[in-house]
Amino acid sequence: ELIRGAHDAWSGWLCVLVVGLCAGMMAGVIDIGATWLTDLKFGLCPSAFYLNKEQCCWSSNETVIDISGNCSLWLTWAEVMGFSKHESGAPAYMGLYFFYTLWALLFATLSASLVRMFAPYACGSGIPEIKTILSGFIIRGYLGKWTLLIKSVSIMLAVAAGLSLGKEGPMVHMACCTGNILAYLFPKYGKNEAKKREILSAASAAGVSVAFGAPIGGVLFSLEEVSYYFPLKTLWRSFFCALIAAFVLQSINPFGNEHSVLFYVEYNNPWLFFELVPFLILGIIGGLLGALFIRCNIYWCRFRKSSRLGQYPVTEVILVTLMTSLLAYPNKYTRMNTSELIYLLFSQCGVTNQEEICDYTNRNFTNVNQAVNIAEAGPGVYAAMWELGLALVFKMIITIFTFGMKIPAGLFIPSLAMGAIVGRMVGIGMEQIVYSYHGESLPWFFRGECAQEESCITPGLYAMVGAAAVLGGVTRMTVSLVVIMFELTGGVRYIVPLMAAAMASKWVGDALGRMGIYDAHISLNGYPFLDIKDEFSHTTLAADVMQPQSNEPLSVFTQGSMTLGEVEEILNSTDHNGFPIIISTESQYLVGFVLRRDLVLAIKALRNRMEDVSPDALVLFTTSPSTDSHLLGHNSLGEGGSNPVCPLQFSKIVDLSPVTIADKTPMETVVDMFRKLGLRQTLVTHNGRLLGIITKKDVLRHIKRMDNEDPESILFN
Amino acid sequence: ELIRGAHDAWSGWLCVLVVGLCAGMMAGVIDIGATWLTDLKFGLCPSAFYLNKEQCCWSSNETVIDISGNCSLWLTWAEVMGFSKHESGAPAYMGLYFFYTLWALLFATLSASLVRMFAPYACGSGIPEIKTILSGFIIRGYLGKWTLLIKSVSIMLAVAAGLSLGKEGPMVHMACCTGNILAYLFPKYGKNEAKKREILSAASAAGVSVAFGAPIGGVLFSLEEVSYYFPLKTLWRSFFCALIAAFVLQSINPFGNEHSVLFYVEYNNPWLFFELVPFLILGIIGGLLGALFIRCNIYWCRFRKSSRLGQYPVTEVILVTLMTSLLAYPNKYTRMNTSELIYLLFSQCGVTNQEEICDYTNRNFTNVNQAVNIAEAGPGVYAAMWELGLALVFKMIITIFTFGMKIPAGLFIPSLAMGAIVGRMVGIGMEQIVYSYHGESLPWFFRGECAQEESCITPGLYAMVGAAAVLGGVTRMTVSLVVIMFELTGGVRYIVPLMAAAMASKWVGDALGRMGIYDAHISLNGYPFLDIKDEFSHTTLAADVMQPQSNEPLSVFTQGSMTLGEVEEILNSTDHNGFPIIISTESQYLVGFVLRRDLVLAIKALRNRMEDVSPDALVLFTTSPSTDSHLLGHNSLGEGGSNPVCPLQFSKIVDLSPVTIADKTPMETVVDMFRKLGLRQTLVTHNGRLLGIITKKDVLRHIKRMDNEDPESILFN
Repeated sequence: ELIRGAHDAWSGWLCVLVVGLCAGMMAGVIDIGATWLTDLKFGLCPSAFYLNKEQCCWSSNETVIDISGNCSLWLTWAEVMGFSKHESGAPAYMGLYFFYTLWALLFATLSASLVRMFAPYACGSGIPEIKTILSGFIIRGYLGKWTLLIKSVSIMLAVAAGLSLGKEGPMVHMACCTGNILAYLFPKYGKNEAKKREILSAASAAGVSVAFGAPIGGVLFSLEEVSYYFPLKTLWRSFFCALIAAFVLQSINPFGNEHSVLFYVEYNNPWLFFELVPFLILGIIGGLLGALFIRCNIYWCRFRKSSRLGQYPVTEVILVTLMTSLLAYPNKYTRMNTSELIYLLFSQCGVTNQEEICDYTNRNFTNVNQAVNIAEAGPGVYAAMWELGLALVFKMIITIFTFGMKIPAGLFIPSLAMGAIVGRMVGIGMEQIVYSYHGESLPWFFRGECAQEESCITPGLYAMVGAAAVLGGVTRMTVSLVVIMFELTGGVRYIVPLMAAAMASKWVGDALGRMGIYDAHISLNGYPFLDIKDEFSHTTLAADVMQPQSNEPLSVFTQGSMTLGEVEEILNSTDHNGFPIIISTESQYLVGFVLRRDLVLAIKALRNRMEDVSPDALVLFTTSPSTDSHLLGHNSLGEGGSNPVCPLQFSKIVDLSPVTIADKTPMETVVDMFRKLGLRQTLVTHNGRLLGIITKKDVLRHIKRMDNEDPESILFN
Repeated sequence: ELIRGAHDAWSGWLCVLVVGLCAGMMAGVIDIGATWLTDLKFGLCPSAFYLNKEQCCWSSNETVIDISGNCSLWLTWAEVMGFSKHESGAPAYMGLYFFYTLWALLFATLSASLVRMFAPYACGSGIPEIKTILSGFIIRGYLGKWTLLIKSVSIMLAVAAGLSLGKEGPMVHMACCTGNILAYLFPKYGKNEAKKREILSAASAAGVSVAFGAPIGGVLFSLEEVSYYFPLKTLWRSFFCALIAAFVLQSINPFGNEHSVLFYVEYNNPWLFFELVPFLILGIIGGLLGALFIRCNIYWCRFRKSSRLGQYPVTEVILVTLMTSLLAYPNKYTRMNTSELIYLLFSQCGVTNQEEICDYTNRNFTNVNQAVNIAEAGPGVYAAMWELGLALVFKMIITIFTFGMKIPAGLFIPSLAMGAIVGRMVGIGMEQIVYSYHGESLPWFFRGECAQEESCITPGLYAMVGAAAVLGGVTRMTVSLVVIMFELTGGVRYIVPLMAAAMASKWVGDALGRMGIYDAHISLNGYPFLDIKDEFSHTTLAADVMQPQSNEPLSVFTQGSMTLGEVEEILNSTDHNGFPIIISTESQYLVGFVLRRDLVLAIKALRNRMEDVSPDALVLFTTSPSTDSHLLGHNSLGEGGSNPVCPLQFSKIVDLSPVTIADKTPMETVVDMFRKLGLRQTLVTHNGRLLGIITKKDVLRHIKRMDNEDPESILFN
């Protein structure tokens, strides 16, 4: 008894604890699985096939690992086929190319087939749908165990296939599935949709938290982007959940990374005030790229929906994978794992980083603590610039076609990669400008800070800012974006640049297209989502929106003068989800509201109990003897008698406190009430008389009509 | 024209930009002023009296500054009086003691007098009042320019007087004053209370941001603790405002601190898993101390209110200051600035820190990078433990008496200091336990991690965790507390320990007393604040709460059958803020609602226009001709005629869409509507007939009654 009481009080915390633990473990498994599969495209660890490249090389105890990270125990497919280790001719290259493409096609086909056969809901990032679910709409099975299982497996395969997608968005969806499944273990949450949404909010925070190792960013993302209602006590629980998940993932340590952040960066130099100008320019570019991406992607998704292409999802995936792997392999920057690319672009040149993009003339590193001096770009940098430019174009185009296919696909990583490429290129440009003015002829705003030989421009920082800008342009996130970026990189000092770029990107993006990618996909799919951020600024009244408009009759029940036959006829001839109850057809004064579901169940239960229920029996929706029921005078009002004219007592299923509004209420207020109170319908009255009803669908249609969009595009269950 | 349009669209951003700039500058001025005044208690810079000690010593170009930070240019009062620099006998000590006390009394008296004479609202931290204001209550002048000016000056004086208070809470109040004043420059915000609250939310975020250098923490504080409604678009603007303010303050750089965080710490060792146990214990201690503090402080404040003590606020301040400075001076840890104390306790022992609390035997530092080895505490540590213990007791007691006096006073810094003392003591204890088991006999959970000679326990980290725990216990903040602590110290790695302590502290605190210090002060002062975080879990119905209960009549107007005389009589005989309008006294069907203010103004305007308004003139609250107005048949319904029986048309001031609820609505739903829609009253109907009215006051009283508290303690304007 005591245990049950404590269990009830603590079940919320226990539930988010379990959700956090499971989300962390799930993320760990997926990270490990995806890495192993990705490495399988390049080679194999013959001594222990279940190890990935890094683990395989660890197990070999070799101290010298060559620059590409290969070791003797790890065999590339070229070596497996019998080519020697250092052979680099066309046959070896072609062999690797062939295996790379073959594995990619295999993974992608498997992934798409799994989704198509077992869990169609597992496709996409899932964030638009979760937003819709949290706003009160129910999609059965969307957060079920099959979706979770299939999505986990197929996201690993999709990532390993080298498609231009990330596993971060799907991780939010999978965390929400975990939350939904585990909520059923706790009766307080499993049985109450509103309470369950609190768990889902916490789970989505945990999802972002494990995806990026950013617990605070996760909570803010859940608050800003995903959740609809966010009671403050949920904030604390979500934070707890996100932190537990991040902690578990960190303990599993799938990346073998000492730092708890994904792309840990540390720059020697602070940013300079005049650098705000290029940062703002990056923000503008990010906003432009984001808006362009959204427009093209929505155009393509609409085409897919309307054409015959939509009928061949697996074929589409195979074709896109083929294009991706054929085009990606030749370019070093697209061949590598996208996370590695981002990390490379974020990092600053130094002793530990001898990549092509760090090939400067007159710069030799001998000591870790040595200051980086300003230098002219060498041929490696110029080559890298070309390759990066091509990579950007390729990523942009292929991601437009990838996002929206019937496989699990997130957008964070591709957006970050595009942004990082743009940023790094701008950063190198800035650096070379400063280098060319270097010395005496430096303009006034550089002087002082850049006068010394030390480099004052860090291209890696530009990559970071650019990544934030493009991600902001695509998703239109704001605070959560800045916090995620800063948790992702550990760059506490760079909040101001990140903020400047995110702001510029958001403004430019909003000017070119109101909706972020998630809202655009919600709108594309016609989900009934009442955006909490849009302001309703029209001056229409409730009377203009309510159903029925003029002349048409409203389907209502009277409280005590209708027979079962009449009630059933109304039930059969309409498809409304509920019906208002009025005193009488003459007076129209409102009594209450009854849901179709409850009424159908009550009638069915009645028929089960009593064999012969006369359709002429009077249906009572009230307990108080009204004028109408006086007609029946001597009949008892209770149910259960076998007298066929005995009235049927249905008052228990009537909601006696429906939300009502006056007909003169401005729609602005009505929309506000729908959002804040989470209403599904409200009754419109004038001086106490029922005039009509406004449902959520009516509100959504009205908003669409006011915005000159097609009001019929909204789906309802 | 175009400019005005753009101005309107951008005014929100412009307004928060200006607020951010001003808040940052204000904070800079106050920081500089408070430091200068604080140093004045100890000595003077004769060459340039306007410099504080640090600046004075900088200007001297001396390279060697002795350990206490003194330099030859800076003269302590003992030196000014003619004692030599290194004399440390009783007379010099007494001289310093005397000046310290004298200056403290002078500052405190001045501060209290300023508040008493010019701006009584400038006292306290201001956060309870701002919470109330943001919930919709209006306190005229609370955010005015006089309050701002006087509070700025007197907080500097109060801090300099060495009282146990902080300037962080008042800074939130002052930032809100800035926001309120500047909002009047933007018509969109100045004229709309609801819009102005958005600016105030942003301003309070800026206040915390400048107080701690924590922009993200500031936004979360505003969201979690201060704001009532927090639309998501406000989040982004608040973040912008907070960031601008932090950036401006950082550019002013009042602390001369290279890091942008207030108490920058860097520990060599990570925390260990088993340390969660002492961290949780610290959390429990923090919760206990917090609850004890709240209870004692509220008891004392209630005593002050009810006794004659409340009539002598300045005397009270002088007495408390006298006690504070007499008791604080002899103990090194209470004599120093509280911020310095916190910084000292947070820091780890090392080469740069040779204080008494770092006096370990067998430990010599020669190199910055050398690992800190585990060592036995020396006599200095033991002495410090005693002094810290005394300081804790002193701080605890004196803060109980200080918070609530009629001077500006914040609680953050004293709470952090108490917590840091407890934490450091526990940390040193843990360290010595580990030392005593050091070697072979280490228990299993220490082994591995603590087996080496290197110290695995960092007492500074315990101080940080303890500070978070006590602050959490006092204010019951959660997410914002963790984020502020981590931004305050830059300790990204320590989120989990901070979170664990904050959770334990919150749970223990909530178990011992439901309300945090701010809510307790709101309740003490009887502000009409409907807490958004409390769940209303009783099963009462709207009908149980509405006014009038049984038999008593409800003051209503009928839409077309009352004379001006009758209306005025009702106006004079009641003090309701508004009146429902019904069709007729027989039918009771609801038409609308009219506010007393509007009605009084309308009648006054009428009397100004027409000299002789007959009290027998019919008052019409409707435009549609009702049955009652049919009686007047041939009379025109328009106003302006001089015919004394011509009805007076008041329909324009009637709100035709008042919020109504059914009498059977559960109070849980009603409370939810009041919170989410920000209602002041709602009308209760049954089948369209008006039964009564529920005002915010009724709801608050009902909640108090349900919680067995005195329902009459609530004030209303």
